[in-house]
Amino acid sequence: MMEYEVKIRVGSLQPLRARLASLGIRPDTCHTERDLYFNSPTRDFGRTDEALRIRSTEEGTSLTYKGPKIGLAGVKAREEIIVSVDPKDEMEEILVRLGFTRTAVVEKTRETYRVEGTIVALDEVKGLGSFVEIEAPSGLGEEEAIALISKVRRELEVTGEETPLSYLEMIIATR
Amino acid sequence: MMEYEVKIRVGSLQPLRARLASLGIRPDTCHTERDLYFNSPTRDFGRTDEALRIRSTEEGTSLTYKGPKIGLAGVKAREEIIVSVDPKDEMEEILVRLGFTRTAVVEKTRETYRVEGTIVALDEVKGLGSFVEIEAPSGLGEEEAIALISKVRRELEVTGEETPLSYLEMIIATR
Repeated sequence: MMEYEVKIRVGSLQPLRARLASLGIRPDTCHTERDLYFNSPTRDFGRTDEALRIRSTEEGTSLTYKGPKIGLAGVKAREEIIVSVDPKDEMEEILVRLGFTRTAVVEKTRETYRVEGTIVALDEVKGLGSFVEIEAPSGLGEEEAIALISKVRRELEVTGEETPLSYLEMIIATR
Repeated sequence: MMEYEVKIRVGSLQPLRARLASLGIRPDTCHTERDLYFNSPTRDFGRTDEALRIRSTEEGTSLTYKGPKIGLAGVKAREEIIVSVDPKDEMEEILVRLGFTRTAVVEKTRETYRVEGTIVALDEVKGLGSFVEIEAPSGLGEEEAIALISKVRRELEVTGEETPLSYLEMIIATR
């Protein structure tokens, strides 16, 4: 499954919260996410631009593989494969036995809203700041996804700097 | 978690079924299991005596890592780490993306009984024949586990040849 999204660094999430409220759009979910990233014993995911992570939330745990990012006019596209796993500690232990090494932890609180089929996430990332992500619904083609993301961004009046970097890359860059 | 078990090749499962019935012990579960085994890109699990498999049953899917077998007076001991995963196809796809290769499929019908804390499994394995496995409850130490397995085996009057081989090793040996 391809994932198309844009990530925008913002000074504060309050203006967007106010804009969403004025449009009558209420939060869909709000939770904390703790992402533990791994590197491979056979190749450096930092160079191949892949990612493997265990995400823990209040609702459960998932294992996600992400393929290399494809830059598309400010929108980030990448393949994503997600599996629900339980329990978390055993999943982590299996990866370690298979030779994967823990590289970084990304912690954030994420509030999500559904806006015209997209998922708009308001993220406060520990050590990094505030970000907005707009993700196209799965199943859309490239052009449709990009057009929809741009439309939603305009409607929500999200200003700020787009970044192609993942939170993992930002965390590693701050070291 | 260490797993202690003995595996016995039998001509037929019927005598044991009759013995269990005469003791008033009824089957606990009965299902088909399809195990897909993988090899690692960094080492040959056939040589290191490890195993990584996705098991699918009617009840769900699990990912299991097994450490090398430790021979103990006819009882097989090995570390086992199990995680529930969903969906199966995505788990398989993640492993393939990470460089793991599919090596073999083991299919069996397994009937299990609880006998004095052990799990007694009556297996019909496709292409291999009939087997009985007696597994000690988790948490037992080595000596207790071995003693309990021997006691249950005597009570159930299971005759036949013990084998230290896994079904995977048997399937590979028949090629």
